[in-house]
Amino acid sequence: MIEMIKITLPDGAIKEVQSGTTVLAIAKSISEGLARNVISAQYNDVTVEVTTPLTHDGTLTLFTWSDTPGKKAFWHSSSHVVAQALEELYPGIKLTIGPAIENGFYYDVDFGEHPISEKDFPKIEKRALEIARGKHEFKMREVSKKDALAFYEAQNNPYKIELIENLNDGEITFCDHSTFTDLCRGGHIPNTGLIKAIKILNVAGAYWRGDENNPQLTRVYGISFPKQKELTEYLELLEEARKRDHRKLGRELELFAFSQKVGQGLPLWLPKGAALRERLENFLKKAQKKAGYEMVVTPHIGQKELYVTSGHYAKYGEDSFQPIHTPKEDEEFLLKPMNCPHHCEIYKFQPHSYKDLPIRYAEFGTVYRYEQSGELHGLTRVRGFTQDDAHIFCTPEQLDQEFKNVIDLVLYVFTSLGFDSFTAQVSIRDLEKPEKYIGSPENWEKAEQAIIKAAEDKGLKFTIEPGEAAFYGPKLDFMVKDALGRSWQLGTIQVDYSLPERFDLTYKGSDNELHRPIMIHRAPFGSLERFVAILLEHTGGNFPLWLIPQQAIVLPVSEKHENYAEKVLNSLENHEIRALIDNRNETVGKKIREAEMKKIPFMLIVGENEEEQGTIAVRKHGGEDLGAVEIDEFAHLIATEINSTLKSF
Amino acid sequence: MIEMIKITLPDGAIKEVQSGTTVLAIAKSISEGLARNVISAQYNDVTVEVTTPLTHDGTLTLFTWSDTPGKKAFWHSSSHVVAQALEELYPGIKLTIGPAIENGFYYDVDFGEHPISEKDFPKIEKRALEIARGKHEFKMREVSKKDALAFYEAQNNPYKIELIENLNDGEITFCDHSTFTDLCRGGHIPNTGLIKAIKILNVAGAYWRGDENNPQLTRVYGISFPKQKELTEYLELLEEARKRDHRKLGRELELFAFSQKVGQGLPLWLPKGAALRERLENFLKKAQKKAGYEMVVTPHIGQKELYVTSGHYAKYGEDSFQPIHTPKEDEEFLLKPMNCPHHCEIYKFQPHSYKDLPIRYAEFGTVYRYEQSGELHGLTRVRGFTQDDAHIFCTPEQLDQEFKNVIDLVLYVFTSLGFDSFTAQVSIRDLEKPEKYIGSPENWEKAEQAIIKAAEDKGLKFTIEPGEAAFYGPKLDFMVKDALGRSWQLGTIQVDYSLPERFDLTYKGSDNELHRPIMIHRAPFGSLERFVAILLEHTGGNFPLWLIPQQAIVLPVSEKHENYAEKVLNSLENHEIRALIDNRNETVGKKIREAEMKKIPFMLIVGENEEEQGTIAVRKHGGEDLGAVEIDEFAHLIATEINSTLKSF
Repeated sequence: MIEMIKITLPDGAIKEVQSGTTVLAIAKSISEGLARNVISAQYNDVTVEVTTPLTHDGTLTLFTWSDTPGKKAFWHSSSHVVAQALEELYPGIKLTIGPAIENGFYYDVDFGEHPISEKDFPKIEKRALEIARGKHEFKMREVSKKDALAFYEAQNNPYKIELIENLNDGEITFCDHSTFTDLCRGGHIPNTGLIKAIKILNVAGAYWRGDENNPQLTRVYGISFPKQKELTEYLELLEEARKRDHRKLGRELELFAFSQKVGQGLPLWLPKGAALRERLENFLKKAQKKAGYEMVVTPHIGQKELYVTSGHYAKYGEDSFQPIHTPKEDEEFLLKPMNCPHHCEIYKFQPHSYKDLPIRYAEFGTVYRYEQSGELHGLTRVRGFTQDDAHIFCTPEQLDQEFKNVIDLVLYVFTSLGFDSFTAQVSIRDLEKPEKYIGSPENWEKAEQAIIKAAEDKGLKFTIEPGEAAFYGPKLDFMVKDALGRSWQLGTIQVDYSLPERFDLTYKGSDNELHRPIMIHRAPFGSLERFVAILLEHTGGNFPLWLIPQQAIVLPVSEKHENYAEKVLNSLENHEIRALIDNRNETVGKKIREAEMKKIPFMLIVGENEEEQGTIAVRKHGGEDLGAVEIDEFAHLIATEINSTLKSF
Repeated sequence: MIEMIKITLPDGAIKEVQSGTTVLAIAKSISEGLARNVISAQYNDVTVEVTTPLTHDGTLTLFTWSDTPGKKAFWHSSSHVVAQALEELYPGIKLTIGPAIENGFYYDVDFGEHPISEKDFPKIEKRALEIARGKHEFKMREVSKKDALAFYEAQNNPYKIELIENLNDGEITFCDHSTFTDLCRGGHIPNTGLIKAIKILNVAGAYWRGDENNPQLTRVYGISFPKQKELTEYLELLEEARKRDHRKLGRELELFAFSQKVGQGLPLWLPKGAALRERLENFLKKAQKKAGYEMVVTPHIGQKELYVTSGHYAKYGEDSFQPIHTPKEDEEFLLKPMNCPHHCEIYKFQPHSYKDLPIRYAEFGTVYRYEQSGELHGLTRVRGFTQDDAHIFCTPEQLDQEFKNVIDLVLYVFTSLGFDSFTAQVSIRDLEKPEKYIGSPENWEKAEQAIIKAAEDKGLKFTIEPGEAAFYGPKLDFMVKDALGRSWQLGTIQVDYSLPERFDLTYKGSDNELHRPIMIHRAPFGSLERFVAILLEHTGGNFPLWLIPQQAIVLPVSEKHENYAEKVLNSLENHEIRALIDNRNETVGKKIREAEMKKIPFMLIVGENEEEQGTIAVRKHGGEDLGAVEIDEFAHLIATEINSTLKSF
């Protein structure tokens, strides 16, 4: 008797096939084209090979290279191929684990006394590609624990033995391809022939199981693609990203620095960076003033009790910077991880009527949060950062309009800074778990609808994620795409029913009764540090003209023209143009090259002709020659360019 | 044989007199006028009565009411008189101690079950004045410990007994006047008759010996004067100071608040205060930019090691907020008590040549210093405050000019803010103790001369105080006098040879060798918190027009004129005048009274006539009527008034 099984596809269609039909055969039965592209699959939430015969009812999802799980299978398979190449090239090495990662894969290898280095990469790539071309199938097979151990004992590989010892007999599988065998849970592409391009990216030290008491291994990072062209494009992107690394640019443009003595993850803003930061602050302050915000200033510490009240201490206390004690009195303070408790205390300073609302307190509040030193990264992961924070206290009736106003402000910020590609995510309740949330269902309903309506009205591209809301309220997060196509989470707008409760915040309604205000937390930049980092990587340091530290540099062609150059500089300063002079005894060519490096948008060359005619010869960053113009004309040009990006709010 | 002794006077003159001559007799031998005014004296550094017979050689200083020790004797004597009055009025009370203080005196008294209150003050003053008029002499006499104890045992006074038990026999003295006797070390005026005016100021609880485990006593505060007129003036000043108390004004004008939950001594700046603070910052930023400063931004914590290097930890560590530990790693951070170590690390970010100097890093840096809760006072003694800090790194040759530039900046700040009465103090080395100071004697000499020369050139009224310099360098401090004649220490300029040494700061000289820069610390405001407090008390809240939160208030005489009032407000905002509308349903009279309370400089009344003619009726704070003017004219008036106080630097 032929046993039939039912395969449910993602669109809900059900296919009845013979038990033992492979994933690939099912793909073929749908379309030949699909079958050609399918490289991995999931069956009942378990990753399977496309060669796996299916033997029971289930739900099947097919993946191609375009899908993240498809890429994962591709890269995981590639790590087998690279491992084979390594074993062939460096006999006696001991393999450990080799997973796929976000971009590519790695394999941790014990090379014994002689770890490999960059000069070995081409050899490895060449051999791996030769193997790939062999179109070897990846074949999974079950192995008994005893046999598995025997296999690796023969290889004298203590790492794999340790891994196997922690597995249950009956659950151990090996994967074979070509002459190579590896302990493996599965999830491969059909055969090695799909891998058309392989690049070993770098090597780094890594401890076995991440424990520094264990032997140090060599982590070999690589990436692979189904087309050579894709590898080329990826390497170009990587090179561009490397050039735009905000840590590198921050150093080159003298924006910020770190000091081992001050402490890791605590940025020091150098003069140019501090000025840039101030321009960002002033830009937002101006818009916020128009939007009815009031600035406040609060201390960087608060009594522990403040955070016990807010709930932050219970939630984060143990993982945070530890309490600060006083020498004589029995007091405990915490570095502030958030500004909201302080703003709640300001709200409480005096009683409020519904007529006072909405109240909007804004602060560029520097907060401190502990991160492990290994997690720190330039300005994107730091231990101290300044939020462009604000808290709006409003009535439920005002929530709708306030939310829209905040979206307008966030979009204004993004547009003014050249981020024109962004999406949004609305996080709402899980309706099945009402007990998880604070605040009345009516208010939640109202708030969620207000957010969704606001997002729609403002024409945002957004998704709705049920169950993703915080316990204290729904929220809207913005993701921007940078010039290299990478996504960054930026601005957030959150509704909060919890803190008004915890701090017992009230206002007197028109009914003369006390009511709870609703709080909105919002930060368009998120943090100034992170924002500047993203902006650096997005623009490669070519900031919008209104923001860039130096807008122009005056380049006298010789010493003779220094006086005229000074006059030009004065005149520029009177026009509030940020400029400087390069009057070193160097050739104009060299001065131009260095100004290019420093990303200065306008080079103003002054020599014989210019001095005679009272003009400047304007060269744009990148090379465009605007010819000789008068200073007023140049000032007008700058003003026009600024006004085209920086509209007023 | 008549024994003669030698009395040396402060001017160096030596008088030979018979042993046993009283202080008063010696004063008389100098001049009758002096003798009339002498109320106390010091002999060989010991306070003596003017009636004391001198029996050995020594140095004599005579004090009148104009001298601080004279006032102290006067007030100490007055406390005896008040104590006598209290004993007569409240038989059975137990006296403890009654010293003179900075302004007046107090006596701590155990009143048993019935402490006195304000309503008792007139009765006490009346009786004390009656006693004073008796012109009773204060007479000191030695008493044996046994007799002294017996005296107070008879009175059943455990406090005095405890005091006597801690004294050595042979060193115990009593002072008698009228019918009253008190345990006393001495230091009185000749007789009670000099006391012409006595005021009991207030009562407060105080623990015996300041220990809260001891019984609570009543501290009776009083003051006395040799003329009734002086008391009247003092009480007027007191009343004015009470009205100008910055804590009271800060609350009334909604500038700042404190929250028990956030913590004592940690001010929260409310919107009006934060805006005022920002105007002060912008004012200074603008001047500093012109003076060649660059802003930097540094974190509010630093590794302990940073402060070990700077020397702050050794000096202040134990008395400061205690270190902050990280949860996972073995790290220790401190809240920053000063910005200088951070700025030194910024200086070290890159190598410097003499051509780069002077470098001037400025930061509105918020620092945290532990103060005992009992010492905290409004904004003048806080635990967190923002310094208008800057550090100048310069060559020894540049010190002179840099110092002068800083004086200019400090004077500009004082003048722009209405402090026109100030003095300065130059603190230099003690030449006899060269081992106390770091840095070469040549550099010290140069720096001291530079400071003195700069102070002279700038026409400052200053004193030179040898031995008052810090170990790391000489300094110049400014004292300003406020409108009530009280002195406040404000701006400071300090030369520092130590931190460049400790942080190994260098610059390459024109000789191509590495040299140490000199550092100047300076803060014209000192701290923004303290400065705002002083400015509040100086101006009584009537800030200079450029700084005040609300420059004008529009007062429509009735609802009919609200639209016109809004138009006026818009127009004012276009002129960048900070204004608001009071369109409550109240009489104009009431609105004016409240605007006066809020110290708003201009009240703009709009009614029938004004609306018709497109004008506003301007009333100045205090009552002056400027009549109806057009808005442009009013804007011009404001601009003129601002420009008259706020010159550009």
